[in-house]
Amino acid sequence: MKLAVLADAIGGILDGDGELEITGIAGLADAGPGDLSFLANSEYATMVSATAASAVVVGRGWEGRAACALIRVANPDKGMAMAANLLGPSLVLDAEPGIHATALVAGDAVIDPASSIGPLCVIESGAVIGARTILMAGCYIGRDTVIGADCLLRVHAIVRERVKIGDRVILNESAVIGSDGFGNYRDGGEWKKIPHIGTVEIADDVESGANTTIDRARFGKTLVGRGAKIDNLVQVAHNVYIGENVAMAAQVGISGSSRIGAGAMLGGQVGMAGHLEVGEGAVVGAQAGVTKNVPPGAYVTGYPAMPHRKAAEGHANLMRLPNLKERVRQIEERIAELEQKLDLGCR
Amino acid sequence: MKLAVLADAIGGILDGDGELEITGIAGLADAGPGDLSFLANSEYATMVSATAASAVVVGRGWEGRAACALIRVANPDKGMAMAANLLGPSLVLDAEPGIHATALVAGDAVIDPASSIGPLCVIESGAVIGARTILMAGCYIGRDTVIGADCLLRVHAIVRERVKIGDRVILNESAVIGSDGFGNYRDGGEWKKIPHIGTVEIADDVESGANTTIDRARFGKTLVGRGAKIDNLVQVAHNVYIGENVAMAAQVGISGSSRIGAGAMLGGQVGMAGHLEVGEGAVVGAQAGVTKNVPPGAYVTGYPAMPHRKAAEGHANLMRLPNLKERVRQIEERIAELEQKLDLGCR
Amino acid sequence: MKLAVLADAIGGILDGDGELEITGIAGLADAGPGDLSFLANSEYATMVSATAASAVVVGRGWEGRAACALIRVANPDKGMAMAANLLGPSLVLDAEPGIHATALVAGDAVIDPASSIGPLCVIESGAVIGARTILMAGCYIGRDTVIGADCLLRVHAIVRERVKIGDRVILNESAVIGSDGFGNYRDGGEWKKIPHIGTVEIADDVESGANTTIDRARFGKTLVGRGAKIDNLVQVAHNVYIGENVAMAAQVGISGSSRIGAGAMLGGQVGMAGHLEVGEGAVVGAQAGVTKNVPPGAYVTGYPAMPHRKAAEGHANLMRLPNLKERVRQIEERIAELEQKLDLGCR
Repeated sequence: MKLAVLADAIGGILDGDGELEITGIAGLADAGPGDLSFLANSEYATMVSATAASAVVVGRGWEGRAACALIRVANPDKGMAMAANLLGPSLVLDAEPGIHATALVAGDAVIDPASSIGPLCVIESGAVIGARTILMAGCYIGRDTVIGADCLLRVHAIVRERVKIGDRVILNESAVIGSDGFGNYRDGGEWKKIPHIGTVEIADDVESGANTTIDRARFGKTLVGRGAKIDNLVQVAHNVYIGENVAMAAQVGISGSSRIGAGAMLGGQVGMAGHLEVGEGAVVGAQAGVTKNVPPGAYVTGYPAMPHRKAAEGHANLMRLPNLKERVRQIEERIAELEQKLDLGCR
Repeated sequence: MKLAVLADAIGGILDGDGELEITGIAGLADAGPGDLSFLANSEYATMVSATAASAVVVGRGWEGRAACALIRVANPDKGMAMAANLLGPSLVLDAEPGIHATALVAGDAVIDPASSIGPLCVIESGAVIGARTILMAGCYIGRDTVIGADCLLRVHAIVRERVKIGDRVILNESAVIGSDGFGNYRDGGEWKKIPHIGTVEIADDVESGANTTIDRARFGKTLVGRGAKIDNLVQVAHNVYIGENVAMAAQVGISGSSRIGAGAMLGGQVGMAGHLEVGEGAVVGAQAGVTKNVPPGAYVTGYPAMPHRKAAEGHANLMRLPNLKERVRQIEERIAELEQKLDLGCR
Repeated sequence: MKLAVLADAIGGILDGDGELEITGIAGLADAGPGDLSFLANSEYATMVSATAASAVVVGRGWEGRAACALIRVANPDKGMAMAANLLGPSLVLDAEPGIHATALVAGDAVIDPASSIGPLCVIESGAVIGARTILMAGCYIGRDTVIGADCLLRVHAIVRERVKIGDRVILNESAVIGSDGFGNYRDGGEWKKIPHIGTVEIADDVESGANTTIDRARFGKTLVGRGAKIDNLVQVAHNVYIGENVAMAAQVGISGSSRIGAGAMLGGQVGMAGHLEVGEGAVVGAQAGVTKNVPPGAYVTGYPAMPHRKAAEGHANLMRLPNLKERVRQIEERIAELEQKLDLGCR
């Protein structure tokens, strides 16, 4: 594809030779002649002057030195996503509409004819699968579960009974939606299982990562709001509420009945105790342990999670303790000297 | 169901109109007319006076204000579990006894005729499945593995070879029991795999969460004691011993050869180093990192895990460091003043 | 097997009765007559004088007291691994060469006749499976993926499209290789998915744990170097580079574009932020949070990860703060006394 055509296709302004032929796409360090690359993270800005790429997608106002043509766009991540769809290998799945001969579909399940049910899928009684939704190999859909249109369930994804999934939802490999919440009560010295008669509702445009588990509610619903993006190996417990456009990185764990406000972002391995709230637009740093409510818009880190500035100051103070100890030691010397002087001279 | 009948069925004392018709079950905030709700966590006590529920299950001695009928029981969690079984959707699985036509069962496996082997299950040679045990779709049972009676293996659960599982055990979706322990020895600069010829034994009434992994022993056995409850995405390494009635929340990781005493409770994302012991009845707070033995009955938190009071004091002291620094600064001023005075006046 | 024969087979020097019959293998505490045991961790040295084992494998220079015969070897872990292969139950899988009747293999996939494709496997178009490679039940191999020779893919392992896997690689149960990286860009208030057109390459002799996820690159490759060993429930994000012979314990999470140098070791639950580097041979302690580059050979712990000595000193200083506070309090008393004396006596 000619560079001028590509720039046009991604809504960018070309700064360079539009006749260049672009054949691939690569990171700044790996790119060679014929490749398109991009600069989204300003940390890598100096690499633009050294890359062997034929062209680099940059932000509109970028003013650094470049060794090649530039395509200026408002949002380099978006531009590059568009370019990847044009230049990359097709990500369209070989999914023919229809039900694979080896899939096991209950007679009363309602399968849209434009959906694609892959090999070895199991769909239980009363389930509904929407138009153009793709179930790859080995997916499981429980009784009376409803999956919307244009969803993609990747290999071995599991959605248990009575769950509702919206449109354009992506469930990655071996994700488990609607697993039992972890609830037991003590009866004498023993734990007895609390039945979880509730369910899970996942709104439109949500993505759940591979091997992520989202538990069903004790009663009522565990809710994942529209556009929320959840990475791999995340645990979402019973009765949790995840707001719209929340982003949660890998291995996050949210305890029961907690709420994450719209647009909040949780870094990798964050843990959150139960019955708490993270406010809208808040950011929780990686590995933080949330033990009380986080206000909207706050940026918290550490364990227990606190405003990042406070956590950073706490850490800095800790690291400077040897200095403080030394000051105290010197004070003790000086005071002993003073006491001696007073004893001797000022009596 | 009439409220009086329900109260009776869960062994409670009714305080209100027994003729009320109960049709559903919901949390205090979500409940409406016709719903039963409950109060187990005293934090929510004030909601009982505001709920739209028709009745609330409370502890025997509860004295708060209520907007509706009450059912008083010794253990609200237990009462509510009983009520959920009466009022909720049936949780009984559509599992017919017998082997599904698509299941692959070795000729010499011993399958109790009252068990139910779901579609696409694979059961290897010499395996034994007990009475009334249910294997949902896509489960895998390895060679010579023995599963007891009345177990439930949910979709895609995997139990490898030579594992022993007791009665009434629940393995949730994609749980992996008997995976190889992580063991390698160095040979020159390279890692060589240590064969894990041991196995896993899981006693009666254990539950393992979805996507949880319990590794087999190097030799001997990894053991999970009677009634232990393990949440999702937990890692139990080779040769670990988990005592009776232990509870482990999601994403806990226990390193090799460590021991958890009976009745201990581990919060979410707890990590425990190898060859250590958590004593009976101890409680390890969420995200704590256990780096030495924890005495029976102790409550530890933080990294490294220490008695909670000590961890909390440490944290409080850290947060008050600016105050201590200021005191030291003032002391330095005062001492300088004293030194000057002494130099001038007391010579 | 006679002890003399066994000692010879594992390259050890026998110190005891070579006629003893060895029939099993067990840990020092569990072993009985007829068992071989071993001492690799010096912490357990005193158990050698008390074990009921018939023989114990020890290091060449070990000089402790023993209650039984000894086999002295250069590397007890290696010796014991060799012994386990001789004495333990066969770990050789019942995998017949060929494609199981229930496996679904695309017509143009290239399956080596000496490989073994288990029941209910799905192999997509253009995939290649090497000689003597074993796919156990329910594995999934994506389009154009290439798997080398002598690999073992355990039950339900998933390798997505266009991934390359070397020789002698082990993928444990439900491992997911080539899942989409977690990447979204903001478009207005919403997240839009970034297509991940890259792939994953796994070199020879790598092992990946059960339920571990290794994401494909945005473009280019996520790389796992020769001989790297990865435990269960680990997350490796897009574009990560893992060097040769790296060892990563369970539940580690590596964020996008980070690099782990050859021979580095990461303890359980370690988290690492994106675009960072852990140097060759470095050791990152369990649960540490890596927030900046770690130099080669360093040993770091804590959050944020820092040189272990510094982290330990920081912790010790924190724990001694009550002492420092008390010293400051005493100083304040003494200084007040001095000030009073000066006011009274030295005016």
